[in-house]
Amino acid sequence: MKVTIKDIAKEANVSITTVSLVLNNKKCRVSQETKDRIFYLANKYNYVVNLNARNLVKQKTSTIGLLIPDIENIFFSSLVKQIEYVCRENNYSLVIVNSDEKIENDKNLINLLVSRGVDGLLLVLSNDSLNDESISNLINNLPIPYVMIDRYIPEANSNKVYFDNVLGASRIVNHLIKNGHKKIGCLTSPTYSVNGSHRVKGYLNAMEENSLEVKDDYIFQGNFQFESGYEAGEYFKNTDVTAIFSCNGMMTLGICKYFNDNHILIPDDISIVTYDNVLNRYMIGTSITAMEQNTSLLAENSCDILFKQIDDKAINNKTIILTPKLIINDSVKDLN
Amino acid sequence: MKVTIKDIAKEANVSITTVSLVLNNKKCRVSQETKDRIFYLANKYNYVVNLNARNLVKQKTSTIGLLIPDIENIFFSSLVKQIEYVCRENNYSLVIVNSDEKIENDKNLINLLVSRGVDGLLLVLSNDSLNDESISNLINNLPIPYVMIDRYIPEANSNKVYFDNVLGASRIVNHLIKNGHKKIGCLTSPTYSVNGSHRVKGYLNAMEENSLEVKDDYIFQGNFQFESGYEAGEYFKNTDVTAIFSCNGMMTLGICKYFNDNHILIPDDISIVTYDNVLNRYMIGTSITAMEQNTSLLAENSCDILFKQIDDKAINNKTIILTPKLIINDSVKDLN
Repeated sequence: MKVTIKDIAKEANVSITTVSLVLNNKKCRVSQETKDRIFYLANKYNYVVNLNARNLVKQKTSTIGLLIPDIENIFFSSLVKQIEYVCRENNYSLVIVNSDEKIENDKNLINLLVSRGVDGLLLVLSNDSLNDESISNLINNLPIPYVMIDRYIPEANSNKVYFDNVLGASRIVNHLIKNGHKKIGCLTSPTYSVNGSHRVKGYLNAMEENSLEVKDDYIFQGNFQFESGYEAGEYFKNTDVTAIFSCNGMMTLGICKYFNDNHILIPDDISIVTYDNVLNRYMIGTSITAMEQNTSLLAENSCDILFKQIDDKAINNKTIILTPKLIINDSVKDLN
Repeated sequence: MKVTIKDIAKEANVSITTVSLVLNNKKCRVSQETKDRIFYLANKYNYVVNLNARNLVKQKTSTIGLLIPDIENIFFSSLVKQIEYVCRENNYSLVIVNSDEKIENDKNLINLLVSRGVDGLLLVLSNDSLNDESISNLINNLPIPYVMIDRYIPEANSNKVYFDNVLGASRIVNHLIKNGHKKIGCLTSPTYSVNGSHRVKGYLNAMEENSLEVKDDYIFQGNFQFESGYEAGEYFKNTDVTAIFSCNGMMTLGICKYFNDNHILIPDDISIVTYDNVLNRYMIGTSITAMEQNTSLLAENSCDILFKQIDDKAINNKTIILTPKLIINDSVKDLN
């Protein structure tokens, strides 16, 4: 015999409405004991909320789907935590999927989230996806509201919330220049990363505006991961640079680890500045001057757009460009 | 007009079976272009896979739900990544939810995952949930297979995969004792943590077996987080301990940061050993002797049980106790 919501209400001695509210994670004034009892009975009788039927009527599941590219990258795990706080404050549950920076996973996981009934999507796409037409098609035809966070497809008609990477990179490189550095290396991200390219552009802009030469060996192409930072350490040791601008935090960890392992002192022997300010709690011995991208700010702005569009049922394309903040620490030697 | 699977098949010029396989994330021999086209059409016409109807027939969604307590803790983010690899290799998608160590979130999120149609659950419960009867009730009545990972309710009839924390702690404290240390402090986890209590038990066992005194001020109660480690640094500075055993990696980061900020050298001034070996890539300047809990081993064993039970449709309660591994680094001074 199939158990209905009526049976559960009867056995729990509450109204059908109460059972519905509890099982749908809606706010309702019943005790935690009653809630537990309702969930207990629902599980006992293998009662599964009919999501599709419910969606057709209520059009709301109070769940947000979040796609991120690399859960182990501390910038993203920090962002996830902030997004979750904002969701919870607004009575949304958050379901997270991780693409491992793979374009085919982006596709499958976005479809998975949509088919499981989420009210909206927060998307940090894989780098490869930013230049992929089938991803653009998929995203442009999504049946629910969504926001591209941190990384975006420039030409897409979509909500976007991201930091101004050109500005941020330019400012932090100018900080090095003000401290008397002229020979400045750049540890870049892979060329297919839009954010990475913008940071490199900011570096090149700052160098050009100050009439400083960018020698061929001033650029080391990394891949945003720890290991490429470590390799960059060895590379830059053999150049004449006095300072290095690293395009993300994970690579900065790597380069600092290399310098430490090889008894090269920061900032006495070499100065370092970095994009991302999520490292310093993990760093023992060195605090790096950083261009901070506040994950809380990113989370709040993204969720704000998404929640409004879910409530309004209107999809307006909105772009919010956030300004990163220079955090000065002791990793830059003053050459003046 | 409501679009059916038949309409999509016709427009994509493929069979209904192909559309069904693609939209359900099943393996099928069609090109990526065809897949993209099918997803594109499904999204275009707002076609949502009827999960409940499908579940009734196929009884499988090829999705696993994972509950973790703290996404920012690098032990858990490493575990998530390993679980995801194993899931992907076995053609399962992974959906992650984060409880923020809150018992009420555990309840809501487990119910959310079950109601959204996952084939099985991997649960790392909040510490508070391990002693909560309503959680036991909820879990004992889950309609799908599940495995408790890393943390477990001792009396629960359930699959469990975890490391032997008493053994691990005892071994690493014995390592300190072999190096001549007799005054050994313990930076504990909160008392409600089963794993933490076991680690403290291992410490006490090792001290007792070697007839070493545990003075009142040798125990500092932490909470598994960075800040409590930092506080513990100041605390232990005012005791006579020559070595400290820290019960997890995040607290170890904190205590190392404190010692560094206060010019206390490891291991010259104080020796440190730690549970968890996920830190050393982040640590600049110090590598800590650690009791490694291999997250890959934990992921493989947990998924192995879960996948088998999903396939067999049988829920046998299996317990796998893994042995952690001592990784010797340069954070212990030899007093012999």
